[in-house]
Amino acid sequence: MQQQPIKKYEQVRMGVDYYPEHWDESIWEADAELMQQSGVAVVRVGEFAWSRMEPREGEFDFGWLDRAIDLFGRRGIDVVIGTPTHTPPRWLTDKYPDVLPILPGGGVFQPGVRGHRCFNSRSLRRFGERIVGKLAQRYAQHPAVIGWQTDNEFGMLDSQSPQAAEDFRDWVYRKYGTLDRLNREWGTVVWSGEYSQWSEVTPPLGGSPYQNPSFLLDFARFQWDTVAEFQAGQIAAIRAYCPDHFITHNFHSYPQRLDLYRVGEELDFASFDYYPNTSPAKAATSPYSGALSLDVTRGIKRKNFWIMEQLSGSPGAWMPMWRMPQPGYIRAYAWQAIARGADTVVHFRWRSAAIGAEQFWHGLIDHSNVPGRRLAEFASMSAEVRRLAPLLEGTSTDAKVAILMSHEQLEALRIQKQTDNFDYYENIKTYHRALTKLGIDCDVIDWRQPLEGYRLVLAPHLYLLDDAAAGKLSRFAADGGTLLLTARTGVKNMNNVCVMQPLPGLLADCAGVTVREYDPLGSDIVRLDTADGEPYAGSQWADILDPVENRQTEVLARYGGSAFFAGEAAIVRHEFGHGETYYLGTHPEDDYLRSLLLDIAQARGIVHAGNLPPGVQLSVRSGESGAYLFVLNLGRETRRFRLGDTYAEAVQGEGLLGGERYDGEIELAPYGVEIFRV
Amino acid sequence: MQQQPIKKYEQVRMGVDYYPEHWDESIWEADAELMQQSGVAVVRVGEFAWSRMEPREGEFDFGWLDRAIDLFGRRGIDVVIGTPTHTPPRWLTDKYPDVLPILPGGGVFQPGVRGHRCFNSRSLRRFGERIVGKLAQRYAQHPAVIGWQTDNEFGMLDSQSPQAAEDFRDWVYRKYGTLDRLNREWGTVVWSGEYSQWSEVTPPLGGSPYQNPSFLLDFARFQWDTVAEFQAGQIAAIRAYCPDHFITHNFHSYPQRLDLYRVGEELDFASFDYYPNTSPAKAATSPYSGALSLDVTRGIKRKNFWIMEQLSGSPGAWMPMWRMPQPGYIRAYAWQAIARGADTVVHFRWRSAAIGAEQFWHGLIDHSNVPGRRLAEFASMSAEVRRLAPLLEGTSTDAKVAILMSHEQLEALRIQKQTDNFDYYENIKTYHRALTKLGIDCDVIDWRQPLEGYRLVLAPHLYLLDDAAAGKLSRFAADGGTLLLTARTGVKNMNNVCVMQPLPGLLADCAGVTVREYDPLGSDIVRLDTADGEPYAGSQWADILDPVENRQTEVLARYGGSAFFAGEAAIVRHEFGHGETYYLGTHPEDDYLRSLLLDIAQARGIVHAGNLPPGVQLSVRSGESGAYLFVLNLGRETRRFRLGDTYAEAVQGEGLLGGERYDGEIELAPYGVEIFRV
Amino acid sequence: MQQQPIKKYEQVRMGVDYYPEHWDESIWEADAELMQQSGVAVVRVGEFAWSRMEPREGEFDFGWLDRAIDLFGRRGIDVVIGTPTHTPPRWLTDKYPDVLPILPGGGVFQPGVRGHRCFNSRSLRRFGERIVGKLAQRYAQHPAVIGWQTDNEFGMLDSQSPQAAEDFRDWVYRKYGTLDRLNREWGTVVWSGEYSQWSEVTPPLGGSPYQNPSFLLDFARFQWDTVAEFQAGQIAAIRAYCPDHFITHNFHSYPQRLDLYRVGEELDFASFDYYPNTSPAKAATSPYSGALSLDVTRGIKRKNFWIMEQLSGSPGAWMPMWRMPQPGYIRAYAWQAIARGADTVVHFRWRSAAIGAEQFWHGLIDHSNVPGRRLAEFASMSAEVRRLAPLLEGTSTDAKVAILMSHEQLEALRIQKQTDNFDYYENIKTYHRALTKLGIDCDVIDWRQPLEGYRLVLAPHLYLLDDAAAGKLSRFAADGGTLLLTARTGVKNMNNVCVMQPLPGLLADCAGVTVREYDPLGSDIVRLDTADGEPYAGSQWADILDPVENRQTEVLARYGGSAFFAGEAAIVRHEFGHGETYYLGTHPEDDYLRSLLLDIAQARGIVHAGNLPPGVQLSVRSGESGAYLFVLNLGRETRRFRLGDTYAEAVQGEGLLGGERYDGEIELAPYGVEIFRV
Repeated sequence: MQQQPIKKYEQVRMGVDYYPEHWDESIWEADAELMQQSGVAVVRVGEFAWSRMEPREGEFDFGWLDRAIDLFGRRGIDVVIGTPTHTPPRWLTDKYPDVLPILPGGGVFQPGVRGHRCFNSRSLRRFGERIVGKLAQRYAQHPAVIGWQTDNEFGMLDSQSPQAAEDFRDWVYRKYGTLDRLNREWGTVVWSGEYSQWSEVTPPLGGSPYQNPSFLLDFARFQWDTVAEFQAGQIAAIRAYCPDHFITHNFHSYPQRLDLYRVGEELDFASFDYYPNTSPAKAATSPYSGALSLDVTRGIKRKNFWIMEQLSGSPGAWMPMWRMPQPGYIRAYAWQAIARGADTVVHFRWRSAAIGAEQFWHGLIDHSNVPGRRLAEFASMSAEVRRLAPLLEGTSTDAKVAILMSHEQLEALRIQKQTDNFDYYENIKTYHRALTKLGIDCDVIDWRQPLEGYRLVLAPHLYLLDDAAAGKLSRFAADGGTLLLTARTGVKNMNNVCVMQPLPGLLADCAGVTVREYDPLGSDIVRLDTADGEPYAGSQWADILDPVENRQTEVLARYGGSAFFAGEAAIVRHEFGHGETYYLGTHPEDDYLRSLLLDIAQARGIVHAGNLPPGVQLSVRSGESGAYLFVLNLGRETRRFRLGDTYAEAVQGEGLLGGERYDGEIELAPYGVEIFRV
Repeated sequence: MQQQPIKKYEQVRMGVDYYPEHWDESIWEADAELMQQSGVAVVRVGEFAWSRMEPREGEFDFGWLDRAIDLFGRRGIDVVIGTPTHTPPRWLTDKYPDVLPILPGGGVFQPGVRGHRCFNSRSLRRFGERIVGKLAQRYAQHPAVIGWQTDNEFGMLDSQSPQAAEDFRDWVYRKYGTLDRLNREWGTVVWSGEYSQWSEVTPPLGGSPYQNPSFLLDFARFQWDTVAEFQAGQIAAIRAYCPDHFITHNFHSYPQRLDLYRVGEELDFASFDYYPNTSPAKAATSPYSGALSLDVTRGIKRKNFWIMEQLSGSPGAWMPMWRMPQPGYIRAYAWQAIARGADTVVHFRWRSAAIGAEQFWHGLIDHSNVPGRRLAEFASMSAEVRRLAPLLEGTSTDAKVAILMSHEQLEALRIQKQTDNFDYYENIKTYHRALTKLGIDCDVIDWRQPLEGYRLVLAPHLYLLDDAAAGKLSRFAADGGTLLLTARTGVKNMNNVCVMQPLPGLLADCAGVTVREYDPLGSDIVRLDTADGEPYAGSQWADILDPVENRQTEVLARYGGSAFFAGEAAIVRHEFGHGETYYLGTHPEDDYLRSLLLDIAQARGIVHAGNLPPGVQLSVRSGESGAYLFVLNLGRETRRFRLGDTYAEAVQGEGLLGGERYDGEIELAPYGVEIFRV
Repeated sequence: MQQQPIKKYEQVRMGVDYYPEHWDESIWEADAELMQQSGVAVVRVGEFAWSRMEPREGEFDFGWLDRAIDLFGRRGIDVVIGTPTHTPPRWLTDKYPDVLPILPGGGVFQPGVRGHRCFNSRSLRRFGERIVGKLAQRYAQHPAVIGWQTDNEFGMLDSQSPQAAEDFRDWVYRKYGTLDRLNREWGTVVWSGEYSQWSEVTPPLGGSPYQNPSFLLDFARFQWDTVAEFQAGQIAAIRAYCPDHFITHNFHSYPQRLDLYRVGEELDFASFDYYPNTSPAKAATSPYSGALSLDVTRGIKRKNFWIMEQLSGSPGAWMPMWRMPQPGYIRAYAWQAIARGADTVVHFRWRSAAIGAEQFWHGLIDHSNVPGRRLAEFASMSAEVRRLAPLLEGTSTDAKVAILMSHEQLEALRIQKQTDNFDYYENIKTYHRALTKLGIDCDVIDWRQPLEGYRLVLAPHLYLLDDAAAGKLSRFAADGGTLLLTARTGVKNMNNVCVMQPLPGLLADCAGVTVREYDPLGSDIVRLDTADGEPYAGSQWADILDPVENRQTEVLARYGGSAFFAGEAAIVRHEFGHGETYYLGTHPEDDYLRSLLLDIAQARGIVHAGNLPPGVQLSVRSGESGAYLFVLNLGRETRRFRLGDTYAEAVQGEGLLGGERYDGEIELAPYGVEIFRV
């Protein structure tokens, strides 16, 4: 088999974000020189610089950008250009005020803080696509330019502008066709909300979340399509000139209400802006939510990704400054990103800004411009990456376990919060953390994706459900997979309307249980009695389960304590076709979950490491060059340990990073990293 | 003496709220059938269904409602129609936007969440009275229809609409006549707030509570009159066609800033929407605040009342879902309502909504439409009620104790919160709870009501006072009654202006004390030294009292500890004419209050039971059929007890509910109920 | 040497605030009579009474004010008139709505609560200067009138009115001249914020603090100039008629974002409205923050000042009522004010208002108008003051220590909060409290003031710095002074742009250290290891210091514990020229600070008393009549103590207040005061 040459963007490299327009041109050369010495292979520029590229309507000035890009090009540093539409210049918002979003309360989102652009604005689209086209045309042939980032950190604004209202009305019309159908599907009869004319269909004026949930969910979907269309205009403008350049977008801060999968559709790959929390108070959770963010990003396109902004120093701008990353922190988290599928890692930012509102979002170099500890750490990390890149390029994660994520569930459960403690994404964190603590590689993918190749699929809270999804999951289990379902599954149809069926609705057959009644626990706790005699705690919710009466169901846990439903089934395993389904009627505590998942992993032959010490994480990247096990200590204490279960033999021989030799036991200082060939 | 036949609405029955328009007509018949089997005698319909009754301006469609009502009528189920004005349809707000309230900040109260109707809007009144008139005309002769509910859960909106401003100006003009008098009575000279033209009189723009308190109080009174007038228009429209039907309104969530007594004036009886809190964390207080709500509702018209919406399952819509009521809860709280004067109890709602924003405000039946535990409990309760109704109909509470409540005090004390911990309604709860824990039946009535028949009247915080009220209370005490007054009495005249007299102002003679000075304790505590040597705690406020120097005053408690006023009188009893007055200069802790009230009850021959176990409540309904003692355990623990004092002999013989025999001792499981003939 | 006769306003006297227009004229005479008996020498009137002075546009009525002032004049009571512009009357705001500020969110600041005046409004200035001129003309020759208070309690409103926008644009134009320079100095290129036309320069619409910090700081400076100009118009109107009257302003509630020094420039002296917190929970801190407020006020003009409103009873209006001041409290805090440089102390207010929104901001007399404990305390205090006035008049504080305060730092650090726990003014409180607890008199002055005469200057957080300030401070140290600098010094230039120099920037030479790196600690703590072996805690921030390598630096504390920078220098002393500089890289706990300052005081011969008991404060006023030591116990416990160090011998002989004799030891009851000749 002939090996496919890897694409430019599949190289494993390090980069930095740089804003030449923020600095006197006299220091650019020295900056580029020092970047080269520090191992910078990629630089991102351009994002936010609209007022420099087009100082007045129709007057373009790319000279400064030419000079900056040339400077990098001459040093063999590749350049990614960010399109500047996140920050419309003042002349644009002044002359075409429809560019500004109208906020839910009715006020205008004024310039001042960035992101002041209504995705529905036709002026924004016209001028935005024009400046992007100009950029694409100009840099299509530049040898240093390799790709593009669209806009910056897309999110939802709930704009109520007249154009947003008109577009929403069209969207609704296209979806439902008639007012009769619209009124029926949304159930607008409640509270006399029936529309008698199309003109009455508007965005949620006033912004209250306590409105018709069907309407609110569709307004979110409309916005997802809107952002995707807005981006598509830019992508078309770029591809017209640069068919061979890549196009990506830098997602950020999960969970986003914005549907990552919808916006990711037309991208070549996804990027993420990664700022793990540096506070000691977050040390127990931050490495795990970070791991999830990386896996989520990898799942957007189900392939490797970039970090477009990686923590380089204490952030601080929208909030007081964070703690400064301690020695090793920057390197360890960059390795964590690579371990979970990042190919290129671009650090934000080269030097802390001297001007503007983000002055204290620290870069690798402080304002003083005296290179210090953090740049040295970056440079040393760059050298490691350069050394190992030949091994790592072309490798990727090969997980047998997937967690299904759905922005429709996220949004629907945000619109109607089930109980005080119930949070869709926080619960996904729980499941993902349990897997991570067992050293099990896991994909996090859109719930609509095919499931071929997985042995275990966790599908928490499929609150909205349709036949397609229920059928796919049932087939997955029937065909031999292990499916894990939870409370609040099958509650609604896709229009956010409750189904008149016993829960879990369309998945009741597959789950082998029906919910007789439920108790929204909120901040209360219920006891779980299990076969091993150990009592655990359940929280958030309690489904009282009636297992189907046949030999294929097994009650794994019953409610206990003083609950009025003590003795009833809480967690049930159901043998279904060639596979099995677990239904969790309550949200069990971490220990139970980890023990359950370990049992499943052992039974289903899923690679795992037993219980890892706190903060220690494993990942494997594999490909034609071999398979590589990353072992990271993202905690604040030194850990000495052996890997258990299927990884028991992995830590042998020479570590690829340090060159040290191991015979099964490994000791990692805080923020220590090692890589093994497995 | 000939016994008056009881009115239809005085029957003791059970019902449900039902929204036929929310469901496919194909299931109505089955619903009605199951209702009949479950003991449903009354159904409320219509509320919120304006867009179905009048889909477009002037086009009326009552066919669906005819069919629904007929369905119930055929099964002998009575129907109450709610007028739909709480939810103006979109065609109305679209064409006549003056229907929408203008919020204090200046924004429009947009449709989406219900209640979007400015009571001052002339369009709302015109179209509202028209649809109500149409309904009344249509159903006047329908044998199943017995009465009406106006709108839904009235409250104050502080609308600043132009019409509200104009109406307020007229109201002020009618009250004060000249600007000179207005400026003088409100004291507008402070901060140069004097009006020089009538046009300057507006609602409180900006909505800050820190404005002229005289002005703010009158703006509240204006709104009370406004809501009453708005309702009067509907009542006239109904009475024109249905002179024999009853008209009620479903009050909710006390305290309301809205004056219940003012709005209740034209009603045949009051109704209440009763949702006792299901959280275990509220188990110690919820049964008592519920008892107060019921007594408040009975006090609105000083007669028996309805529950128009009674808890049937976990609520959840404006907030995350509550805990599901545990077995017995639904029944026990329905009995509590009847025990305190409810005749008909209508449960909200038949089945949980599948559509719209209240999907998780659970009904008796879950979305699945599989009848379950809660419906079974309701059905069994219905059977009990049907069995005991012949005894209970025509009976009512006969209390010798009254607490005076005043919405003018409530509003004035909201406008100027006295101290952090000082809350008018919370303090009323304290007094009511102390009586409830002693098994003392108590009325809660408007402070302007006559006091004949009472032995003890508690009049907390009569902050605003006039000669009429002071005279009435003084006469009550002088004629042999026991009057209890508290700190913050007599501070102001009815225009919310401070009096230049020693406190308690007009009641100083009657109280036998003057307040030399006071200390607003806020969240601090002061020690109370009493004759029994037991130290108690006082909170919120400390009046330093100078008792009138004669033999008729007795100092019951003095301040102690390190207060600079240690040794001064805190609580004083004053023999006044044939009766007595207690003045409480501080808010004493519960134990002291209960002990004080027990002493009074014993001295004044008031029926009581001594200290009841936590959660246990007593009530007596009496009439020509006899007297019935309700004993309820609304706590989460089983209680075994004997009733003390005047009730010591009550628990003898056969319980009317269970048929069990007792000889003085009673044991009630959590949410257990028993009824005795006394 | 001929003694200069003191000015009228330098007399040491007592007064009250009185609003004749709030009361029926029939009681004025009795009020004045009782004031005279109680020792009132000064009355403030007029403030807020615009609607009485000018009931309709252009119609003036001063008859009532004539009569009131005559009444005082006849009794030898002097009168201060407050200009009424804080409360524009309704006819003015109605006809000239530009008088009303536009709030940051875009709403109008409606009348209702006071202060509804946009300082940029031309109507306000025109009508305001006219009414002030009329007042000045009328009372210029009145023998009782001695001076004026401008407006009331100036503050910043961030008004976005069209006139404010236009004035701001002019201000920016005058400062920067060209858009190019403006864009460069503010660094607007960040986020494409570059202005391409002057019309794009606006106030911060939307009001978010997360905008360009250079812009936001200049918008604050613009407002400082605006308020000063607004006041200057009134001052000119007064001086035109009353060249010999004094003019002051009553500042309040520090810290104010408003630059006190800028607004104070044209005043004859500063005044303060002093409401020390009466809550027992604040007893440990309130006396110290009060002392700071007084020293800040004295620093505004670097001379003695007035209290224009002094606590007389429980405040309550914007908030629930406070605790009532206990016996001695009113007197002790009035003496504290005099001890720290107040000459005249005017108590707010004579009697609690019966009308309007400030009814519960209690005066010396309660609503009842029965004179009580508080008036008696005031009267007795007045007699003491009258007795000691001949000694105290002409005396003032003579401090050798100064704390530099800067509203530019305050505002810049508000715009970009450094860490959760970092607060500029709270930190100034820490330094001031440490000095107060050592009995060291301290000035608090504008950072631009000359430093001659001081031995120790504390200059915390000089975040913004220029050559003039850095040069002055360096010279102060080089010439023999002791200078104390802290973290976050020299971070920025005066345009709020970060400098590209090692910190502390322009003061690095003088400090003898550079900051290698820093860690924003936020709410975390770092250990400090010192020479005395005692570990202390540092908080908020940690600069990792590189001392200049020569013999002139001494590391006083190093970081310890588990910090990654353990062992690095935290606090350094640097011998610089004839003096020395201390640089504190972290915010040390109080104990360390007090110990450090005591060492410095001992070394530099600064008068001090060692560690004083909690709540005990000392101050010295000295002049030609001698020097007077005030000893106050502002705590809630009796204290018996000897003064240490340089004050060891002070407490000897007869106390001037009580006439008691002492021989070194003193015992003071709570709120006890004594004065000694030293």
